[in-house]
Amino acid sequence: MLHSRTAASRLLRCATRWQHSSAQPTLNSITSDDIAHFAQFLPQNAILSTLSPISVPPSEIEQYNTDWMGKYRGSSTTVLRPQTTEQVSKIMKWCHERRIGVVPQGGNTGLVGGSVPLKDELILSLSNMSKVRSFDPVSGALVADAGCILESLTEYIAPHDHIMPLDLGAKGSCQIGGNVSTNAGGLRLLRYGSLHGSVLGLEVVLPDGTILDNLSTLRKDNTGYDLKQLFIGAEGTLGVVTGVSILTPAAPRTVNNVILALPTFENVLPLFKLAQQHLSEILSAFEFIDRTAYELAVKHGQGKGLSDEEIEGAECFVLLETSGGKKEHDEEKLNILLETLLESDQPLITTGVLSQSPAQFVSLWKLREGVPEAVSKEGKTYKYDISIPIASFKEVVDATREQLRRKGLLHEDAVRHVIGYGHVGDGNLHLNIAAAAYTPEIESALEPFVYELVASYKGSISAEHGIGAMKTHAIHYSKSGVAINLMRRIKQVFDPHGIMNPRKVLE
Amino acid sequence: MLHSRTAASRLLRCATRWQHSSAQPTLNSITSDDIAHFAQFLPQNAILSTLSPISVPPSEIEQYNTDWMGKYRGSSTTVLRPQTTEQVSKIMKWCHERRIGVVPQGGNTGLVGGSVPLKDELILSLSNMSKVRSFDPVSGALVADAGCILESLTEYIAPHDHIMPLDLGAKGSCQIGGNVSTNAGGLRLLRYGSLHGSVLGLEVVLPDGTILDNLSTLRKDNTGYDLKQLFIGAEGTLGVVTGVSILTPAAPRTVNNVILALPTFENVLPLFKLAQQHLSEILSAFEFIDRTAYELAVKHGQGKGLSDEEIEGAECFVLLETSGGKKEHDEEKLNILLETLLESDQPLITTGVLSQSPAQFVSLWKLREGVPEAVSKEGKTYKYDISIPIASFKEVVDATREQLRRKGLLHEDAVRHVIGYGHVGDGNLHLNIAAAAYTPEIESALEPFVYELVASYKGSISAEHGIGAMKTHAIHYSKSGVAINLMRRIKQVFDPHGIMNPRKVLE
Repeated sequence: MLHSRTAASRLLRCATRWQHSSAQPTLNSITSDDIAHFAQFLPQNAILSTLSPISVPPSEIEQYNTDWMGKYRGSSTTVLRPQTTEQVSKIMKWCHERRIGVVPQGGNTGLVGGSVPLKDELILSLSNMSKVRSFDPVSGALVADAGCILESLTEYIAPHDHIMPLDLGAKGSCQIGGNVSTNAGGLRLLRYGSLHGSVLGLEVVLPDGTILDNLSTLRKDNTGYDLKQLFIGAEGTLGVVTGVSILTPAAPRTVNNVILALPTFENVLPLFKLAQQHLSEILSAFEFIDRTAYELAVKHGQGKGLSDEEIEGAECFVLLETSGGKKEHDEEKLNILLETLLESDQPLITTGVLSQSPAQFVSLWKLREGVPEAVSKEGKTYKYDISIPIASFKEVVDATREQLRRKGLLHEDAVRHVIGYGHVGDGNLHLNIAAAAYTPEIESALEPFVYELVASYKGSISAEHGIGAMKTHAIHYSKSGVAINLMRRIKQVFDPHGIMNPRKVLE
Repeated sequence: MLHSRTAASRLLRCATRWQHSSAQPTLNSITSDDIAHFAQFLPQNAILSTLSPISVPPSEIEQYNTDWMGKYRGSSTTVLRPQTTEQVSKIMKWCHERRIGVVPQGGNTGLVGGSVPLKDELILSLSNMSKVRSFDPVSGALVADAGCILESLTEYIAPHDHIMPLDLGAKGSCQIGGNVSTNAGGLRLLRYGSLHGSVLGLEVVLPDGTILDNLSTLRKDNTGYDLKQLFIGAEGTLGVVTGVSILTPAAPRTVNNVILALPTFENVLPLFKLAQQHLSEILSAFEFIDRTAYELAVKHGQGKGLSDEEIEGAECFVLLETSGGKKEHDEEKLNILLETLLESDQPLITTGVLSQSPAQFVSLWKLREGVPEAVSKEGKTYKYDISIPIASFKEVVDATREQLRRKGLLHEDAVRHVIGYGHVGDGNLHLNIAAAAYTPEIESALEPFVYELVASYKGSISAEHGIGAMKTHAIHYSKSGVAINLMRRIKQVFDPHGIMNPRKVLE
C-alpha cells in the first residue's frame, strides 16, 4: 500500500518538476530596471548584483548562491542586504508586484538547501539587520533583529545571567531569524523546549510588503490565532522574519558534563531512564554518538577522546550534561548516578569521565559538536535528520549500512561511513552517510529507502533540519494529504503569487 | 489617537452587531429532519434535543446552554454527544452542508463565553470521548480523547511518575480538548511552558468533516507548517479537537510550598528576582494574591490562613512552590532563601510559612486556587485576565478601583470588591470585580477603560482566558489590523461557511 502510494506520488513529482524546470511561467528574472528601483531606497553597499550598473563579478555572489555543504547551487544575479524593516518591506512590495522570487537568507548554515536560490531568485540577506532592540532582565524577554548571530546574542545577555534557549553547532554563524524560520532544535531542547514555546513574538514582512508587527514581549497572550507559530519552521516561504522576541532563561549557575562509554546500544534506553530519575530537573542534554562517529571526531581533532583502554569494548557513547543552581547539589546528584551505574551487577557503562575543569567541559562537548565537521572531512555527506523511537536508533543505522552494502556501495570510492549520533532526549537521530561524492547511485540507494524506513516507525523525516529543497518530494512520508493540502491553502493566503522562497517546503 | 481609533472601531462594531442580531442569514436552525439524520449513526443516548422525536424538556439542555458563571446563555435545541471521531466527522459534514452552526463544548468551564451558543447553534459535547489512547512512559507522550478530564489524566499517569504539564483550578471538570482549544495556562506554566510547546499533535475534525490526523508523539518534527499550533487557542472556531497528544514531564520527587506576607507590593519584583536566583530550576510557581483576595479566600473557607498576627501589616501575599528531584537539596535551597529574606536589613517579607505536611501543602494552595470561587460567592464577577509588566499589577488594580469610585459605583449595591491575583512568573494578572449584579453601568465603567489601560502598557487583554464571546469587540486592543485580517483569512480557509463556533474570537 505504502509502495503504490509512493510510486504514484513520485510520478506526479517528476511531472511537476519537469514543468518547473521548463517553463517557470509565473516568476520573472531581475533586470537592471529592478536594480535601479532598489537603488532609490537602498545604500549602494546594500546591493550586490552582476547586473548593470552594479556589475560585480559573479564570484562575489557565489557564497550566497551556494550552501555550505556545496550541495545546492543557485544562479541568482542579485543580493540585497537591507538594514531596516521598512527597506525589507519596500523590496517585498516591489517583488510582489513584479513577480520576482525572493529567497531570505540568514547565516546560510541550513542543511536542506532552504536558504539558497534554486534558480535566479533575488537573495535577501538579513546580515545587515543585526541590532538588539531590547532586553528585559526581569522577564528575560529579548527582542532582536533577525540578522543577529546566535552567539552574539548569547554574549549580549550573558552579563545579565541569561542564556539563549537554544544552542547549536553553527552558533557562530547562524542567525536568530534563520533559527526561527527553520525551528532549529539543537542541544538545549531537552531542557528549554522548542522555539514554539520560547518565541514570544515576531516581526514579519509579508510577501506583499505588509509589516506584521507581532513583536510582543508577553509570556501569555490568548487573543486570537497565534499567527507567529506559522512562521516558526516555515523556512521563509510565508514571509521574511525581520525581528524576533524570545524568552531567555536564567543562566544555570553550574554546569557539568560527563561522557559515558556503553558496551552495547541496548543500554542507552535504561541509562536514559536512570539519568532522568537521578538528575530530573538538572538534566540538560543527553546526546548519543555511535562508535564510528566517535572515532571520526577523534581522528579529525574534535576534542580529546578517552584513552584506548577506556573505550575498549564500547559500542557507543553518551554525553550527558547537567545545568543547575547549586554546584554541590548537582555534583552530588551526578556522583550518585555514576556510582549507581558502575556498582550495579550488570553495569550499563564501561567507563564514565566527568569533566574536571572548564577546559575539559568544552573538550567533551567538542567531541559531540564536532561530529558534523569531522564527517564532512571524510567526503560529501548525505544527512538525514529523523525522529524515531529511541530504541530504534541503532536498528536504523544498521539497516541503512546494510542497504548500501547490498547495493555494492559500501567501499572507499562510494560510501565510506554510515554513522549515527543525535539527541536521545528528543528522539532525534542524525543519520549521516559520508561518501566520496554525491552520486545518483548512492542517492537512489538511500531514497526512498530511508524515508520508508522512518515512515514504518511513524517517525519524522525531518526532526529539526526542515524540508528546504531537499525533501519537498518526501514530505508525504511524515504528513497526510489532508495536512499538505491545508499547508498549500495557507501558503496561498500569505503568498498568492508564490514569490517567497519558491520550490521550498511545498513543491 | 487611541481614543479616536477606538471610537471608530466601536461604531463599526455596533453596525456589525446589529446586522448579526437582525438577519443571521447564513446559518440555519436545526430541524427534526436533522435529528432524524443524526439518529442514523448516533445511539439514542447521544442525542439530547427538545425537537421531536427526541423531545426532552428544555431543562435538560439548560446546563449546556449556560456557562458556569451564568453570564452567557444560548437557546440551542440540541446537544450531540458522539463517542468516536468518525461520528464527529459525520456530524460536521452534515452541518457544513446544511449550514448549521456548531459549538464544541468540553467541560464548559471557560470564562469568556466561548463554549456556549449565542443563538441556537448545535452543541457538540465531547464528554463521551474520554478514553486514553496510549501512554509511553519513556518519552512521556500521552495520547487521549479530547473529552478526557484533566484530573483523570493526571491520575492516569501518576503511577508512571509523570504529571500533566498544566494544572488549573477547574481540573476536576475541564477537558483536555478544551484546555488545548483555549490554550489554558494555569499554575504550572512557569515551569513547564505553554501548550504551544507541550502539545505534540492533535486530531481535529475540520468544519467540512475532514479528519486531520496529526496525532504525532514525536518531540521534534519539522516537516512543513506546524498546523496544530493554529488550533491551540482557536477556541473551536477552526475545527473540533477530538484527540490530543501531549508531552508529560516526569513527576517531581518532592514539592514544597511557602506563603509569604509582604509589607508592600513594591517588594514583589525584588522577591521574584531573589526567588529565581536561589531556587532557579526548582521554582515551579510564584503566585500573587492581594490583601482583599486573601481575605475573601479566608472568609469563604478556602484553606486555613495565617494567624491575625502573621498578616498584620501585609499588603499582599506570594505563594511560592518548588518541585525537584531531591528533598534535602530543595529544602536547603528554600531555607537559604527564607533566611536571606528574613535576615536582611530591610526584610522583603513580614512572615513566611513553609508547609510542613501534605495537608498543609494542599491548604496553602487552596488559598490561592480558591480565590475565584470565593469571589464568586460575593456576587457576580467581572473577570479580566491580562498580561502586563509585573511592576504594574497593583497600579492596574488601584486604577480600576479608582475608576469605579469616580463613577459612584463602589458600594454594597454595585461593586463590592476589586481584587488582583495571578501568576507573577508569567506576567499574568487576574483582575476581578465582584458586583451585586451584572449591570450596564458597571460594564460601561469597566470597558473600554480596562482594555485601554492594558493597551497603554502594551499588554494583552486576554492572557489565558481567550476571546470567546466576551472580547471579540476588544481584540484590536492587543492585535493589529494586519493580524486580525490574517486571522479572518485563515478562518475562511478552514471554515468558509462560518459554522464553527460562530461569533466567537472574530466578529
